Amino acid sequence: MYREEIKVLDCTIRDGGLINNYQFKDDFVKAVYRAACDSGVDVVELGKKLTESDEYTREKYGKWNFCDDDDLKRVIDSHESEQRPLIAVMFDVGRVDFSTLKPADQAPSDMIRTACYVADIDKGIDFAKRSKDLGYLTTINIMAPSASIRTDLIEGLSQINEVDEVDYLYLVDSYGAFYSEQVTDYLNLYKKYAPNKELGFHAHNNQQLAFSNTQQAIIDGVNMLDATINGIGRGAGNCNLELLLNFLKNPKFDVRPVYKAIQEHLVPLRSEIEWGFNDIYGISGHLNQHPRAAMKCRGDNEIKDLCHEFYLSSTRMDEDTLT
Amino acid sequence: MYREEIKVLDCTIRDGGLINNYQFKDDFVKAVYRAACDSGVDVVELGKKLTESDEYTREKYGKWNFCDDDDLKRVIDSHESEQRPLIAVMFDVGRVDFSTLKPADQAPSDMIRTACYVADIDKGIDFAKRSKDLGYLTTINIMAPSASIRTDLIEGLSQINEVDEVDYLYLVDSYGAFYSEQVTDYLNLYKKYAPNKELGFHAHNNQQLAFSNTQQAIIDGVNMLDATINGIGRGAGNCNLELLLNFLKNPKFDVRPVYKAIQEHLVPLRSEIEWGFNDIYGISGHLNQHPRAAMKCRGDNEIKDLCHEFYLSSTRMDEDTLT
Repeated sequence: MYREEIKVLDCTIRDGGLINNYQFKDDFVKAVYRAACDSGVDVVELGKKLTESDEYTREKYGKWNFCDDDDLKRVIDSHESEQRPLIAVMFDVGRVDFSTLKPADQAPSDMIRTACYVADIDKGIDFAKRSKDLGYLTTINIMAPSASIRTDLIEGLSQINEVDEVDYLYLVDSYGAFYSEQVTDYLNLYKKYAPNKELGFHAHNNQQLAFSNTQQAIIDGVNMLDATINGIGRGAGNCNLELLLNFLKNPKFDVRPVYKAIQEHLVPLRSEIEWGFNDIYGISGHLNQHPRAAMKCRGDNEIKDLCHEFYLSSTRMDEDTLT
Repeated sequence: MYREEIKVLDCTIRDGGLINNYQFKDDFVKAVYRAACDSGVDVVELGKKLTESDEYTREKYGKWNFCDDDDLKRVIDSHESEQRPLIAVMFDVGRVDFSTLKPADQAPSDMIRTACYVADIDKGIDFAKRSKDLGYLTTINIMAPSASIRTDLIEGLSQINEVDEVDYLYLVDSYGAFYSEQVTDYLNLYKKYAPNKELGFHAHNNQQLAFSNTQQAIIDGVNMLDATINGIGRGAGNCNLELLLNFLKNPKFDVRPVYKAIQEHLVPLRSEIEWGFNDIYGISGHLNQHPRAAMKCRGDNEIKDLCHEFYLSSTRMDEDTLT
């Protein structure tokens, strides 16, 4: 597959940080940045941009939950590159103080992505407008559309369509519930009600479909694709960047730096934290459920491999609580 | 997805046996058979049907490489079931003695699948004819079509098309190299040159695409689908049966017995033998290479995680042997 317009966004640190509370060592973040530069990735998302408070401290929540300019600069300055990717950070609606945000031309970051549920799309639009006023590229990533009521989602899409300040609108398979036919169906909806917007796609790998669903999104015309090195990310993780670059024929990409990062940095990390497909996440994705219960199950050594029990309790086939 | 004609073939023991030289314990095989019965799977393949010899001994090659009638009967008799699946065994061209094969009505097996490369399709046809003469259902599974010369493959397909004794013709992604578009392209070829044949599909999971490619095969009209419990199988393994049953809406299927088998039998086995996606198999699949080198790499603890080195050596980017 080659299409010149296709852009790849590496969200290794931002989505991976959801597993370890953004406690990545600087060397790891620098290695990811280096791989992003050398592989020709278009955007690299280095964390979230929350506001520090007594409750949200850097010690407890990890520095990449805050992405201070100094931290970002140290990473960027660690590697010379002719083809520097854009730097993205993510906003969580409700945990951001705009007064601390510098204009884009005075800050190391270039893009601000706002993640919000359908119910918070108005807030998301407000955030995107403010970010654009400061000179940033902007996205709105609507979370968990698979669990939203269709009319609400349509209303939100129609609103976003009218906002010039939103550069990219993301379809996000938060629960890893989509088959390719759902990717197509939702994208048709997004295209129908937000025809002015460039679309992005962010997959999760609960059913071993993150990569194939990303391919489906490409087939359906999406040009901004999220992926992470080795598929690291919350729960079952994301679309593997290396598989995606293998698939894309665009000569600007080079997969070798990604395999180098895996060999040197991701393989050791796999012995510390877990990500990727397993039976429990497969069930959670199939049932279109928030990964919360699956992650809790995987975090408990007593029950982490009891997929039959998890299936029964998740489907409530062993009790009658739904009658 | 619901289509009444769809049939699922569980090849857990046959493809899984390629990892451990068919040294499964009887309890494991019985558990797989029970799961196949109780989940409503249509066919269960319990091994290969090789002929014993001084070179090929049961001790060394494992009893499920030979599938003696007594062994099959013991498994079948271990579980009462109203919906008994058909029993399949696989022939390897060149290692079979037909004189020892009983007619189907005197044997526990119902289906004989012949695996052959494009170069051996004449032998495969001969085997299918002889098997059909003995009353068996038959398939021909053409191995590694992704590495065959197109005109040779077309000639083979055209030959098979004329043989009434072949019940199913399989597209096999032996190297795990296909994206969905290749699945469609090859299936179009199979449909064009073997329009008389019912088609089957057998995937490998090198690029995390076994399940999605199986879905693509369904979309493209294939009605006989191979899968294995937990995706067990050579190298990166196969399409996960549990994911496939979750996808299929046919009410004859029940996924719970499969999750029960995983929890009780596959999880313990995972600590003994390895299967499933990893970086090395991903590279091997992407490059459309026989999994031999990848399996050798994964079998060597010194290099099993050196994906960057494996990529370089596999693509020969570090030397000039292809000039």
